[in-house]
Amino acid sequence: MAITVVGSVAYDTIETPAGKRERCLGGAATYFSLSASYFTDVRVIAVVGEDFGKRQEAVFQARNIDTRGIEHTAGKSFFWEGSYLENLNEAKTHNTELNVFASFNPKIPDAYRDSEFLFLANIDPVLQRRVREAMPQARLVAGDTMNYWIKDHRPALLEVLKGLDILLINDTETKMLAANNNLVQAARAVIALGPKALVVKHGEYGATLFHGGRAFRAPALPLEEVVDPTGAGDSFAGGFFGYLASQPEQSPAAFRRAMFYGSVMGSFACERFGTERLQKLTRAEIDEHFNIFRELTHLA
Amino acid sequence: MAITVVGSVAYDTIETPAGKRERCLGGAATYFSLSASYFTDVRVIAVVGEDFGKRQEAVFQARNIDTRGIEHTAGKSFFWEGSYLENLNEAKTHNTELNVFASFNPKIPDAYRDSEFLFLANIDPVLQRRVREAMPQARLVAGDTMNYWIKDHRPALLEVLKGLDILLINDTETKMLAANNNLVQAARAVIALGPKALVVKHGEYGATLFHGGRAFRAPALPLEEVVDPTGAGDSFAGGFFGYLASQPEQSPAAFRRAMFYGSVMGSFACERFGTERLQKLTRAEIDEHFNIFRELTHLA
Repeated sequence: MAITVVGSVAYDTIETPAGKRERCLGGAATYFSLSASYFTDVRVIAVVGEDFGKRQEAVFQARNIDTRGIEHTAGKSFFWEGSYLENLNEAKTHNTELNVFASFNPKIPDAYRDSEFLFLANIDPVLQRRVREAMPQARLVAGDTMNYWIKDHRPALLEVLKGLDILLINDTETKMLAANNNLVQAARAVIALGPKALVVKHGEYGATLFHGGRAFRAPALPLEEVVDPTGAGDSFAGGFFGYLASQPEQSPAAFRRAMFYGSVMGSFACERFGTERLQKLTRAEIDEHFNIFRELTHLA
Repeated sequence: MAITVVGSVAYDTIETPAGKRERCLGGAATYFSLSASYFTDVRVIAVVGEDFGKRQEAVFQARNIDTRGIEHTAGKSFFWEGSYLENLNEAKTHNTELNVFASFNPKIPDAYRDSEFLFLANIDPVLQRRVREAMPQARLVAGDTMNYWIKDHRPALLEVLKGLDILLINDTETKMLAANNNLVQAARAVIALGPKALVVKHGEYGATLFHGGRAFRAPALPLEEVVDPTGAGDSFAGGFFGYLASQPEQSPAAFRRAMFYGSVMGSFACERFGTERLQKLTRAEIDEHFNIFRELTHLA
């Protein structure tokens, strides 16, 4: 089943203890769609500037990702510069240039309208809601957000949450959204705001799914070397939602396996700078890592 | 199989968001032995002052813990005062009075000498080593330590590590001991220092076992309310090592189950102030929680 994703396609300049890369192809929609493309068909809605050319387009095409919803406009693409020199779990932002993203008004190609799965990456909740309403046929809608929207755009965000099936955020965002420092209580409060399922991402400690009154915890792979954690959360979301969309039924068991696939893809993303690792995976490698996750967590 | 544990028996004054308790019975050896007592026979080596009376003694006796190795001496017992008001994952120490613990010289009752399992709780590595050498019959030796010994008593600690089968420490301690910020690399470096197995405790995110070239991750239970995290790590160690000692064979599968029992006991410890919850458990409750952990982590 096809997923439509709306979010950022961007350039990132990234410095980590492993080195520095200038203007890697990045953005939430990029990481998400590359990751999900190993499981199902993916269609992107985004906006880019004149600096987005054939080479960048080819990254999507190589993974059979539909880019008809990427709008090309005058100006520069969204640009972010950050580093993880002291703490691999938290980026330090040095520069953000919204550029063409500042006036992003998502346009949905007609060919996307039969998508049964919709992922609203971390963008202005006003836009998230507009896309959701323009795609009423989507029967499973997942989304992400961040502290900025939680703090300063709460009413718009609450409207989005009402229409979400699955929300994927991190510990801090969960506690901030619920105004509660206990994760279990906070998760319950967030679910009361609309989403049927909540995935809380814990960075190097994995993620917890709250769904159907039950918790399920997937670890992250203990990695020998984290080269670049940029996009790990979006890659998790791509693996998680991509796997769910590939299944005939979104059963509780499918949700649990989706958590493992999310963790697998998040781990892969960290192995190289930018989207490098996500561009060249095979499904066999992915399933091999899935089995490593099983061994890492299962008693027998 | 009997475990001998050497460590502190103390009084703690604890403040958490759930309230404040004055002079609870505490100390690493207390938490460890109560926790391990649900799995196997436990014998304690410690020192207490005149403030340790029949009521405290009765807590150990009710769990059939051998207290002949608790030395009673003139003065006051070890006292610690701390709070977790801002962060339940990290205690803020307000006061530490070593009292009789300052001149602790562990004395091993003859009746303890056939213990096949030995746990060296977090005390001066010079004393840990002395106890280990005085109990050559112990065939599985586990131990704990802390940042203070790692930083300022490294040579003595390295001697202890050479004689350890299992070291249980937290993330920060592992990275500090190895002088390496990557957990996987740090774990390998620590194992090269002596211990055959390393358990890294991640607080609310569980713990990872590195053993036989393989990693195994046990979660912590997502708790509705953490009343008091004091002693959770020692209770983890008690459940982990107590279960191992109860098994006919310390196989890799037994180690993995031991990780779950450790997490179960650590979670129970947090449910009430001090050792309150650990005093009144049943094995049925423990196994019920073990099954909750399995459901929390297993795909099917």
